This record gives sequence, structure tokens and C-alpha cells, in this order.
Amino acid sequence: MARIAIDMDGVMADTAQQFINYYEQRYGVRIDKETLNGHPETGGFPHEKGIIRSFLFEPGFFRTKPVIKDSQEVIKALQEKYEVFIVSAAIEFPGSLTEKIEWLQEHYPFISWQNIVFCGSKTIVQADYMIDDHIKNLQHFKGEALMYTAPHNINVTDYKRVNNWEEVGQLLL
Amino acid sequence: MARIAIDMDGVMADTAQQFINYYEQRYGVRIDKETLNGHPETGGFPHEKGIIRSFLFEPGFFRTKPVIKDSQEVIKALQEKYEVFIVSAAIEFPGSLTEKIEWLQEHYPFISWQNIVFCGSKTIVQADYMIDDHIKNLQHFKGEALMYTAPHNINVTDYKRVNNWEEVGQLLL
Repeated sequence: MARIAIDMDGVMADTAQQFINYYEQRYGVRIDKETLNGHPETGGFPHEKGIIRSFLFEPGFFRTKPVIKDSQEVIKALQEKYEVFIVSAAIEFPGSLTEKIEWLQEHYPFISWQNIVFCGSKTIVQADYMIDDHIKNLQHFKGEALMYTAPHNINVTDYKRVNNWEEVGQLLL
Repeated sequence: MARIAIDMDGVMADTAQQFINYYEQRYGVRIDKETLNGHPETGGFPHEKGIIRSFLFEPGFFRTKPVIKDSQEVIKALQEKYEVFIVSAAIEFPGSLTEKIEWLQEHYPFISWQNIVFCGSKTIVQADYMIDDHIKNLQHFKGEALMYTAPHNINVTDYKRVNNWEEVGQLLL
């Protein structure tokens, strides 16, 4: 059975939308998602990146991220044909670890703890496919790299791209 | 640079000793470590395994485990010659995740977050060497498997064995 490594933030969890939600809650201004296109992950807001980045360290930020559309259904279907691992570079944010486990249990109860990986560098991951929104994770990968479209990577042209979970399903199911 | 995947519990952290410490604290009886030889990891105590296993879920159990002798010095030296990753099947015990990060930061401050992996199944790990005390982790490994001696694996004969960190150093440095 071929193995797929699926990233969480930006692929299953809508990080850009969560930044927008936190920003609106804090500053009362609703930023249009398209405004973020082509900016680094915490850029594109009227406030400087450090302010936006600080949201990452607030309790609840990872626990309450919106689920990206169709990811639950497609991942469940992928499990029939592939060994599916969720691989998140979560160790950089130790405060996120418990929140991420709880988030997965709530929204993807069909994913076993056996198939969850929290790491730093993803170079240690052995799989046939990797779905990720960051160049740094895809660039050393030896299998087939699939870039999941997010505002911050919209101008990257070096990878085969999947724009939404429907496209992931069309490609892999 | 060759890569080594090093397990935490039973290899860096003395799980057997921590069970003994908790048991003594709870029941006032100091069990000799050799009594545990050949028993499953929570066996060999006068009380049944379920009681011993419940220690794993008590806050602080992972945070206060004793460091196995010479592991700090040898791992630091290994970093000069190898890419060293710490790989722990920690996702089974979500309560342990933060404790494990803090434990590593306290006792092995020279290990970067980039090189820490918390997983379920270790089949996803790509490395040249794996040092582990459990058959289930070593048996699917494609590189060189090294079984780190622990009371529960003392009768296993299928793997090249390292009995202490001095022997790891002699073999790999």
C-alpha cells in the first residue's frame, strides 16, 4: 500500500483563515483572503508580521482552526487505498501539541494515533506522496511532492499543485 | 551524513526505574530492577500490570524520568558525526507530549526542535540506524536496528544489542 504524508496547517486546517479571524477579533477589521496572496505566511495584514505571528502562541489558536473544505471526506476515502499519515511540523510550537491532537480527534476521529507524526524537519519522513503547503517541507522529499495551494505559496511554480481537496481526490482516488 | 533515530523511553529515559520509583512511593516496597527481567514492560511487580500501567497517565511521570547514564555525553558526540533524531512513539500518550519536550530541553538542551519526532507507528521513519528497546519499532526498520537492553527485552535474541551508552559510543563513534 502506498503511503501519503499529509500536512495539517494550511492543508487540513485553514491557517490563513484563522489569522484573518484573530485579526478581525483583535482589530475589528475583516481582511479579504485574497489580500494575503503572495505574502509570507504572517504578512499581508495592515499590522507588522510579528504581531500576526504572536497569534500562534495564544492558547486556542491551533485548537479552533477551521477545517478545510472536503478534507475530512477525501482523507477518509484515501484511507481505503493508501496508508495515510498526518505529518505536522508541530514541535516548533510545543504549546500546539495537545491542541493539535484534540483538533484531530474532534474533526478526524477516523485517524488513529498510530498515524500521527509531530516533527521538526520533515526530512525523516518516508512516504510515496507528500501533500504540503511549504517549499521547505517538499524540497527534500524523495516521493511525489504535491503543493497544496495557500495564499503564501500562490506564486510558487516548482511543484505539481493541488488547489483543493476535490483535486486531491481526483488525482489520488 | 548518516542518520540515527534514537528512541526516548527505555533508551534515554529510564522507564523501568521510574516504574520502580513510583511503585515504591505508592506501596512502600522497593523492587529490585533485576526482578523485572523478562517481564513485559509493566509486569514483574507484586501488583497487576493495569496498576503499574496507570502510572503512565499520572502528570509528571514522563517529566521526571531519570536520565540513562552516559546518554547525554554520547548523543552530543554522535551529533558531530551523524544527523541525530530523537524519535518517540509519544502520540499514544497525549499527556506526555509537553512533558517530553520539557524533559528534553532540560537534559539535552543541545538537541534542536528540528530533530525531535513524536509519532505513533515508527514505520514512517527514514534513517540509517535505529536505537530502540521495542521489537515492534525495530522489526520493520530497513536500516541497522540496534536493540537497547531493557528488562522487558532481555531474552530477545533477534537483534544486534547495545547494553549501555558506552557500547553505543564504541559502536558508532
